[in-house]
Amino acid sequence: MVKRIKITTIGGGSSYTPELVEGFIKHYDELPVSELWLVDIEEGKEKLEIVGNLAKRMIEKAGLPIEVHLTLDRKLALKDADFVTTQFRVGLLEARAKDERIPLKYGVLGQETNGPGGLFKGLRTIPVILDICKDIEELCPNAWLINFTNPAGMVTEAILRYSNIKKVVGLCNVPIGIEMGIAQLLEVDHSRVRIDFAGLNHMVYGLNVYVDGESVKDKVIELLTDSNNSSFVKNIKGLGWEPSFIKALNVLTCPYHNYYYKTNDMVEKDLKNAEEEGTRAEVVQRLEKELFELYKDPTLSVKPPQLEERGGAYYSDAAVRLITSIHTDKRDIQPVNTVNNGAIASIPNESAIEISCVITKEGPKPIVIGDLPVAVRGLVQQIKSFERIAAEAAVTGDYDKTVLALAINPLIPSDTIAKQIVDEMLVAHKEHLPQFKFAETIEV
Amino acid sequence: MVKRIKITTIGGGSSYTPELVEGFIKHYDELPVSELWLVDIEEGKEKLEIVGNLAKRMIEKAGLPIEVHLTLDRKLALKDADFVTTQFRVGLLEARAKDERIPLKYGVLGQETNGPGGLFKGLRTIPVILDICKDIEELCPNAWLINFTNPAGMVTEAILRYSNIKKVVGLCNVPIGIEMGIAQLLEVDHSRVRIDFAGLNHMVYGLNVYVDGESVKDKVIELLTDSNNSSFVKNIKGLGWEPSFIKALNVLTCPYHNYYYKTNDMVEKDLKNAEEEGTRAEVVQRLEKELFELYKDPTLSVKPPQLEERGGAYYSDAAVRLITSIHTDKRDIQPVNTVNNGAIASIPNESAIEISCVITKEGPKPIVIGDLPVAVRGLVQQIKSFERIAAEAAVTGDYDKTVLALAINPLIPSDTIAKQIVDEMLVAHKEHLPQFKFAETIEV
Amino acid sequence: MVKRIKITTIGGGSSYTPELVEGFIKHYDELPVSELWLVDIEEGKEKLEIVGNLAKRMIEKAGLPIEVHLTLDRKLALKDADFVTTQFRVGLLEARAKDERIPLKYGVLGQETNGPGGLFKGLRTIPVILDICKDIEELCPNAWLINFTNPAGMVTEAILRYSNIKKVVGLCNVPIGIEMGIAQLLEVDHSRVRIDFAGLNHMVYGLNVYVDGESVKDKVIELLTDSNNSSFVKNIKGLGWEPSFIKALNVLTCPYHNYYYKTNDMVEKDLKNAEEEGTRAEVVQRLEKELFELYKDPTLSVKPPQLEERGGAYYSDAAVRLITSIHTDKRDIQPVNTVNNGAIASIPNESAIEISCVITKEGPKPIVIGDLPVAVRGLVQQIKSFERIAAEAAVTGDYDKTVLALAINPLIPSDTIAKQIVDEMLVAHKEHLPQFKFAETIEV
Amino acid sequence: MVKRIKITTIGGGSSYTPELVEGFIKHYDELPVSELWLVDIEEGKEKLEIVGNLAKRMIEKAGLPIEVHLTLDRKLALKDADFVTTQFRVGLLEARAKDERIPLKYGVLGQETNGPGGLFKGLRTIPVILDICKDIEELCPNAWLINFTNPAGMVTEAILRYSNIKKVVGLCNVPIGIEMGIAQLLEVDHSRVRIDFAGLNHMVYGLNVYVDGESVKDKVIELLTDSNNSSFVKNIKGLGWEPSFIKALNVLTCPYHNYYYKTNDMVEKDLKNAEEEGTRAEVVQRLEKELFELYKDPTLSVKPPQLEERGGAYYSDAAVRLITSIHTDKRDIQPVNTVNNGAIASIPNESAIEISCVITKEGPKPIVIGDLPVAVRGLVQQIKSFERIAAEAAVTGDYDKTVLALAINPLIPSDTIAKQIVDEMLVAHKEHLPQFKFAETIEV
Repeated sequence: MVKRIKITTIGGGSSYTPELVEGFIKHYDELPVSELWLVDIEEGKEKLEIVGNLAKRMIEKAGLPIEVHLTLDRKLALKDADFVTTQFRVGLLEARAKDERIPLKYGVLGQETNGPGGLFKGLRTIPVILDICKDIEELCPNAWLINFTNPAGMVTEAILRYSNIKKVVGLCNVPIGIEMGIAQLLEVDHSRVRIDFAGLNHMVYGLNVYVDGESVKDKVIELLTDSNNSSFVKNIKGLGWEPSFIKALNVLTCPYHNYYYKTNDMVEKDLKNAEEEGTRAEVVQRLEKELFELYKDPTLSVKPPQLEERGGAYYSDAAVRLITSIHTDKRDIQPVNTVNNGAIASIPNESAIEISCVITKEGPKPIVIGDLPVAVRGLVQQIKSFERIAAEAAVTGDYDKTVLALAINPLIPSDTIAKQIVDEMLVAHKEHLPQFKFAETIEV
Repeated sequence: MVKRIKITTIGGGSSYTPELVEGFIKHYDELPVSELWLVDIEEGKEKLEIVGNLAKRMIEKAGLPIEVHLTLDRKLALKDADFVTTQFRVGLLEARAKDERIPLKYGVLGQETNGPGGLFKGLRTIPVILDICKDIEELCPNAWLINFTNPAGMVTEAILRYSNIKKVVGLCNVPIGIEMGIAQLLEVDHSRVRIDFAGLNHMVYGLNVYVDGESVKDKVIELLTDSNNSSFVKNIKGLGWEPSFIKALNVLTCPYHNYYYKTNDMVEKDLKNAEEEGTRAEVVQRLEKELFELYKDPTLSVKPPQLEERGGAYYSDAAVRLITSIHTDKRDIQPVNTVNNGAIASIPNESAIEISCVITKEGPKPIVIGDLPVAVRGLVQQIKSFERIAAEAAVTGDYDKTVLALAINPLIPSDTIAKQIVDEMLVAHKEHLPQFKFAETIEV
Repeated sequence: MVKRIKITTIGGGSSYTPELVEGFIKHYDELPVSELWLVDIEEGKEKLEIVGNLAKRMIEKAGLPIEVHLTLDRKLALKDADFVTTQFRVGLLEARAKDERIPLKYGVLGQETNGPGGLFKGLRTIPVILDICKDIEELCPNAWLINFTNPAGMVTEAILRYSNIKKVVGLCNVPIGIEMGIAQLLEVDHSRVRIDFAGLNHMVYGLNVYVDGESVKDKVIELLTDSNNSSFVKNIKGLGWEPSFIKALNVLTCPYHNYYYKTNDMVEKDLKNAEEEGTRAEVVQRLEKELFELYKDPTLSVKPPQLEERGGAYYSDAAVRLITSIHTDKRDIQPVNTVNNGAIASIPNESAIEISCVITKEGPKPIVIGDLPVAVRGLVQQIKSFERIAAEAAVTGDYDKTVLALAINPLIPSDTIAKQIVDEMLVAHKEHLPQFKFAETIEV
Repeated sequence: MVKRIKITTIGGGSSYTPELVEGFIKHYDELPVSELWLVDIEEGKEKLEIVGNLAKRMIEKAGLPIEVHLTLDRKLALKDADFVTTQFRVGLLEARAKDERIPLKYGVLGQETNGPGGLFKGLRTIPVILDICKDIEELCPNAWLINFTNPAGMVTEAILRYSNIKKVVGLCNVPIGIEMGIAQLLEVDHSRVRIDFAGLNHMVYGLNVYVDGESVKDKVIELLTDSNNSSFVKNIKGLGWEPSFIKALNVLTCPYHNYYYKTNDMVEKDLKNAEEEGTRAEVVQRLEKELFELYKDPTLSVKPPQLEERGGAYYSDAAVRLITSIHTDKRDIQPVNTVNNGAIASIPNESAIEISCVITKEGPKPIVIGDLPVAVRGLVQQIKSFERIAAEAAVTGDYDKTVLALAINPLIPSDTIAKQIVDEMLVAHKEHLPQFKFAETIEV
């Protein structure tokens, strides 16, 4: 008898869900999912129903025997699951808007997964995910937890250090996006491009890049620094690196590196955007409203093309590709977030890293890289320290550690500004931070 | 027959020399120096004579049989030396003033040993010191090179990586200054205070602090975060740390940490100073003029008290204490810059670190610390990467590496600003940077 | 135009060659070899012709357009090669017989690749292979060197440390043999079995074993310690491990571990064999004579089944599988000898290890394992130290280092016996050890 | 008011006690002990009284105000102690005699702290010492535990891994003995000799040796390999190293290295001794009988010179020197067993090592050495693995792990002999191994 495959998606009411469902449909041959459980919280009930019904229509149209279950009962949804995916957002887009708006007041980057925004998203998310881990331990101890919830690096670090769950993989669409961009830049099919990724989530570098197995790094770096290519995918080039800088760096960067190597320009750009069109959360709120209107249409039974503007491209591909490779012990190579175990020398063995791994039934096995280039070790280490101390603060609710985490973040100009931002954001997010004891320690 | 001790001081015409001479006089019992060779370059001839004659008068007054030689012939001065000390400044205070003024135009810290100033001081100094190392190899291969020349960490790194000299120690007065400050804060005699130092030059932390061997770290951190102590030595507290930050950091900082943990405040302060009283180099130029007037006085035969305003307090103590312990195999503990060799886990074994060492006749032996606290590893690693790439740029004259070194420095807001500052400073310091090929690569 | 593939086999007159030729024939679809150059030395001319003509007949029968060239001109053979395989034996089987006989006189294991035999095979082989590396550097700098020549670990270590060749892989049939044995033990097809290998050549452990991706290690260890299975492939179980030992060890061993964990039994067995049927070299000499008689038969155009008794089963499979994966950038997982680079924590980064790697066009990339189990780290480290010091002795011809290498080998009961064996073997192998200066340092 | 110093000696009835008492008397100026508590078990009551009364007479004669307490109540003795020293022997010399006799039957070294003897001494001792650690935690949590009980390396490892006690130092007289021997060899006063020690207990190497701070290693190695020096202290030279071996090894060995580098000679010698004069335990039993007869003499009030034949020379010096330096925060350098923390790269950070340390009030701080010479890393690692698995077996009473610990010991010729020895010794020592469940798992 063939083993049934049960997948549970926490935050199932997300606008991303049709992506994921499309992925399961496309890969059904390799990954014949039997049950898909979409679970959400009370506040998300309406969205869950809208998106869940679209999912049912999509599967029906595809003619596949995948059962779709919609529920608010997390324990029921987790029972005997084979894979658990998490894509929830504590505090919804309203909280994200605060993560973006408040730091800008202090001249600091307002963004969802980096700097103060990343810290506070972590503080809100980590206690919830650790709670889910306890449920997994009890209800589906053999399941793999595939975490998409940002900040994915900090969340994976927290799970590795503060839960009993070992079968966890953090997943991000940044690496696959870089591969796609490079394929486009080189005008070759994506399947022929391979990149050796290493670093941390949203702080990942491409150490080498190959077409058909032959290194083309030099050519790529030349193209990236060629001013005639300036119209190239902005995700890859960001605001345009100084040719000297990128040639000497001699590795591929990811889009988030703009925040660190072009800090002042990015803050300026964000301030302008916030003023003109609203912050990203505010834009996405409008987009989501439109998307859910579309989703409601009972004649819609495919992923609507408008979803691509929402961002998160390739997430579904990345997720289904990962789950399929674990399920089939495929042993192909994918960049994921997993425990370091010595693969990157200057990161602690037990920390989470993002790295190209062989994906097996027993999970991802990192391909050793020795160490990161000298020029990037410090920044990577700094973000790892930030993630570790933030995770500790999230678990303990320790005010001083929260200030420390932010003060050592490379985007913050001083300990005093760190404290001011922490103070304002703690109050703003108070209802989602039950671990902090406000009366006693925080000057509200 | 007792071995004669020959000491050679490169940059002997420095205003600091009377400090050093006073040190040799005070420690003559343990360290009976036979010959002191003060050597300088043609441009420094006049100062050398002024300060050299003062040195002679000081020694005569002390009634000690130390021969003082003044020379412009470096090779003669180095021949068979036992200890070589270096305290020269390529480009003199004029160059330092540029290191301070130019970055401020870009809103970046203008300072002698950190950020762009540190980079360019390194670019000017490293080729000269490597040249001195070649002379040492040939003329006094058993000598110890005691380097005071800043940026001492970068210079020591360069000597370890790019010369054949192994017997090198980098020395700084920051640790001894912290000890003195802590003794004052605790109101105990300095001799009872011990601090476990570890980190890099101008980026050193006090991991623990003891009085009579018992840890008093908690008490010290409490005092440092006590607002009632706010008038305490500004060197130690800097602009005043946020209590939450320093409590969670839980180690002692050094004054230079203000540049990194209070970046915006320090830039502001420096801009104000530059406008009002001139940059530090400009102030020191005035001070030095006065000092040399004093030194000329043929009736002066002691170190004049005005020298203390010049800064560099305790340098003489630190230097003579170090030379004495090497000479006598004293095996006491002193914080110096030496090769890591595993003492700090997250720094490469072959890199220079600043750490408490046992000082033996065979040089400093670091006391292992395991690793630095998580919160500081990233910043330390970043400065080490900066030092390594800067040292490589200094040796190769590689323009791209110079931009990279500055772009990864935590004080720089973007790769573009890094490039702009590099371009302006390369031109400003052109005559002292013969290793760079201006016509070809640098957009002047 | 499709790229032509030129393969050069040094020691082409070996009795193994038909294995290799069969491999190229079987895998022609994936690896369309254009030219196969079999090269040997003057003394091997006759064998080269016999085996080379058989190779030609085999390829003709298969109807494939592979050119076979026979030559004594190594430089001609290497010119523009894509892959170079080495399977030569300095001193032929006569030398191996001495490696086996002499140590037994001292009560020490006489064997080709371990203990004194391994040391002396290394001393004879390393200078020759380093010479080949120089030719490769000059004549085919982009070629991959696939080394089968034993002691493969020591030889790979020597190439990594003492040549400029980076594109080298050491290959051994032990891991594939273990996989085959385990498949047989579990009664499943070999293709379903996967083992995580890590350690050194002839000192490799199976850290985990999977069928269809699920770990079956516990079951395998149970079967291996089950006395009812005692007739199982002797290669795998050796003389039969003590159940307590292997349960607590909790990893799979390789056949060569018998020499280390059953030292006295193995010496006894070898002494008995040497007396009764001759040492292995002596047996193989007889087998080879018969094989070459068969090979001469002009009607023979397939690999004769008698070759399997010769040993070295699966070598051809392993070799062709490896070359194919490099050529096609297949990225499958194979256990090979390559540079550690941090994959095994307790082995130096720049040393050779044997480990499961992803095989890419740029060579093998080790999958990180963290560290070896505590119980085996010491033995593995000891063999690595032996290999490193032996390689140094091979390159320098240093007598003291030769004695040291043997004295620290775990099979040797004392420094005195080490010296005695070294003295006798240096003289016995004198003509193949030109790097040693006999007159001066060695008491002959 | 001056702090009183209370010292508690567990196993106070040992024949060594007069050594220790003499030490306290000699160093009273620096270390003014107030109370010395000698505690023993019921079976040792008579000896405790004999030796305790001698101690009282010695102190009375010295005219010092040290109170001596004799007791069988361990908890009373530990209450508020400042230093606890342990020198007990579970099973007394009878057990040691078995540790020596049984292995010899299997052709394996019979010795108290190495091989099977060391394993079983560890199995008997570790549970008792962990029990003492629990008492310390409760009754004198600030005390330093100075452990002399062998196997000191394995015992220190067990305390570090399986107790809550951090303030533990393992102490051995081997390093001081080597220093004395080298001083004698060089004909200089011991105070002028310094050795950089690193390794494990009874597996320690002298990486460098200095007179007045200058390295004399080359000279010492020359002297040690000079056959004209053959009458030199046998402890140092052992049976005489092969000059080639020791020159290439290029570090100083310790006497116990004879067991590993001259295994067969040592077994032969031990077999001969056992036959002729009895094993060491049997000799010591006779010596102790004589010693206790002497100790009973009420006119004796000094340490009798015959104690020196007992062995353990310099123990008292080493112990009192260590306690004094901790008490006074002396920061001198002494070789002790402590936690590695990165001082030796190839040993796990949290393991016990024996290394030259700065001795402070907060305990020993190792001086980093980078890594051990390549040639010795394997053996050291092997002994560390043996110690770790033995400690685990001691704590768990796991039979398989006991066999594994012995099978990986380099002195054991096979897993089968390991099992046979374990089986016989488990039964022989049954009454002192309550943690092993005999009925179920061990074939008695």
